[in-house]
Amino acid sequence: MFEECEGGITAAKGFTAAGVHCGVKKAKLDLAMVASSTPAAGAAVFTTNLVQAAPVLVDKMQLQRSRAFRAIVVNSGNANACTGDRGMRDAWSMVRGCAGILNVPEEQVLVSSTGVIGQFLPMEPVCSGMRAAADALAPGGHSDAAAAIMTTDTFVKEAALRVSLPDAVVTVGGMAKGSGMIAPNMATMLAFVTTDASVAPDLLHEAVTSAADRSFNRISVDGDMSTNDMVLVLANGQAGNATLHSPSDPGYATLAAAIEHLLVRLSKMIVMDGEGATKFIEIRVKGAAGEEAAVCAARAIANSNLVKTAFHGEDANWGRILAAIGTSGIAFDPASVEITFGDVPILRKNYAIDFSEDAAKTVLSRREIEVIVDLHQGTGSALFWTCDLSKEYVAINANYRT
Amino acid sequence: MFEECEGGITAAKGFTAAGVHCGVKKAKLDLAMVASSTPAAGAAVFTTNLVQAAPVLVDKMQLQRSRAFRAIVVNSGNANACTGDRGMRDAWSMVRGCAGILNVPEEQVLVSSTGVIGQFLPMEPVCSGMRAAADALAPGGHSDAAAAIMTTDTFVKEAALRVSLPDAVVTVGGMAKGSGMIAPNMATMLAFVTTDASVAPDLLHEAVTSAADRSFNRISVDGDMSTNDMVLVLANGQAGNATLHSPSDPGYATLAAAIEHLLVRLSKMIVMDGEGATKFIEIRVKGAAGEEAAVCAARAIANSNLVKTAFHGEDANWGRILAAIGTSGIAFDPASVEITFGDVPILRKNYAIDFSEDAAKTVLSRREIEVIVDLHQGTGSALFWTCDLSKEYVAINANYRT
Repeated sequence: MFEECEGGITAAKGFTAAGVHCGVKKAKLDLAMVASSTPAAGAAVFTTNLVQAAPVLVDKMQLQRSRAFRAIVVNSGNANACTGDRGMRDAWSMVRGCAGILNVPEEQVLVSSTGVIGQFLPMEPVCSGMRAAADALAPGGHSDAAAAIMTTDTFVKEAALRVSLPDAVVTVGGMAKGSGMIAPNMATMLAFVTTDASVAPDLLHEAVTSAADRSFNRISVDGDMSTNDMVLVLANGQAGNATLHSPSDPGYATLAAAIEHLLVRLSKMIVMDGEGATKFIEIRVKGAAGEEAAVCAARAIANSNLVKTAFHGEDANWGRILAAIGTSGIAFDPASVEITFGDVPILRKNYAIDFSEDAAKTVLSRREIEVIVDLHQGTGSALFWTCDLSKEYVAINANYRT
Repeated sequence: MFEECEGGITAAKGFTAAGVHCGVKKAKLDLAMVASSTPAAGAAVFTTNLVQAAPVLVDKMQLQRSRAFRAIVVNSGNANACTGDRGMRDAWSMVRGCAGILNVPEEQVLVSSTGVIGQFLPMEPVCSGMRAAADALAPGGHSDAAAAIMTTDTFVKEAALRVSLPDAVVTVGGMAKGSGMIAPNMATMLAFVTTDASVAPDLLHEAVTSAADRSFNRISVDGDMSTNDMVLVLANGQAGNATLHSPSDPGYATLAAAIEHLLVRLSKMIVMDGEGATKFIEIRVKGAAGEEAAVCAARAIANSNLVKTAFHGEDANWGRILAAIGTSGIAFDPASVEITFGDVPILRKNYAIDFSEDAAKTVLSRREIEVIVDLHQGTGSALFWTCDLSKEYVAINANYRT
């Protein structure tokens, strides 16, 4: 259904990008710019943390002010969070600066920041960086842009795919950054998506909200929620399809599925790059009373430090999984639960345990592990992705500021 | 008000205890017994995990069947959790075995287990261990008993204190075990408390519930909740005070405060012995809308892996504290928050930051750190205790079963 393609955030028609080093960080790329050659519908999902960084507050206002957008500018190395009035002024300066440089209306620019909390943005480097980025904007700039939004990430996260709507082939592409402070309920990370499909802003918002719910809200690295996280989507319509206005319009379901597919791909990359992670764990809860209950159970498993350290140790400690579900708040019968690792049944109904430690060890020694939990209660199911908890996570986070 | 004394779980009149090695664990003490020479009122608080171990289910039934108790028997090394019908039969066998050996009514025995989940209790060692423990019961057995309930604990946790009621001096003593799987909302650990005060069972239940709420439910090591946790209290009345029946009875407030004081002491020991912990962190949230909001905020801080790793790294990363409060679900104004480490103000209103990194480093280099968060919103306050998150935590938990 989806054809993977190259080009990340600039794979869709009419988008250019750049990533430059401006000096917020010492020597790495730290400023990204994405631009559309024509006004694009915009939609976003933001962190649910009550403490919201200046760029989050600014973008919320921009999305109320304007229905069309021309550019996104992002810096890494400084989150511009908990910076009060001055932080707000700095975020607006970034918006105005970018608009001036690109010669587009102020209300058509979105802004984003990630990095240390509580320090003021060094505006001089940011402003000169925006000029350099604008000069560098190109269809080939996607990887630099994806690199410029990284913090503790160890690899660039980008993906793109093509899909046929009834009246046009459209492209959806994007980039994301993790990797610590990843928890469900948004409040997780940065992701930027572009598409050349033509979609009304409200419908685009519906698509991204639903897709984020089943992708970025289904991953967990350490259970923490950041102040800055957002998913921004721009749709510039250059593919030439008839503008989608309603969920029942032909092609909308396909486009929505494509956006979800892309966000799931980016989400999994974030988990794979979880701070200190050595294993990628897919949790499939089925047989739940409903999808919501399945998500609750899966999230409780994914957020448990004890479960995550057991996976790190390649220890088939199914008891911790069952105990984690017990804390999730959902109603279920523990004696009915069955747990499978990969293709090795570990726990069967009525606490029957009859597995070979060797077979379990073989599954658990893999870099990617599938955990299937069947609650035998109903038909609700959900996927969730997490990683193991290693000593390296502690090392990375113990001295982040310094 | 309280006079600390020696003797732990046997400090109160009429109690004896023993700790023996029976063979559930390889070479360590693994079976504890506590007995009262006369029937004692009993009360308990149990884990809120939906997955409840057999001894938890058995004790709940015992507390419904009987108003008086003579003994508690506890094994470590095996949790008898997720063991189905056979686990229930084994727990009842422990109860019956202990009752037979001590020649007390079956319904007057409480039972407890801690250790690995999902394996059947080896009943032969447990039975012979109960006989050996019964033979060893003595007023001096408190430390052996406290040692026999340990799992990954690195030191024995016991405390006792004396307090004057209007008509008698009473003693309250106890022992506890941590140290992983410690999270608020009970569901945390094992603690056993004895007192020679005379208290009606219902009132004793009220006292222990309220005390547990402000002690064991205010600590966090890793945010996980166990299937086995309980606080059991026995009150045998041998101090000779007039039996307390109502919260307004003279002396009740004092006794309740003594129980709370004891539970707080034991709770702090559990945090200090948190798996891999190198620092003890007291979180004081004040200026909240109410006590509940203060507890929510404090718990969110205490459960954040990012906050805990920052303390491990002695990094004054106040942004993570603010971000954690933002995820707690309480309503507050981030710009009004003030954060102090020890006597060093770190964050002032309107995100004003003006502290010496050296002064912060000095406070953070200590083994015990006080964190004060003022929400400047109301008069609600709460204390909460946690520890840092170290690489050692991961090492301990990655291979617990093996």
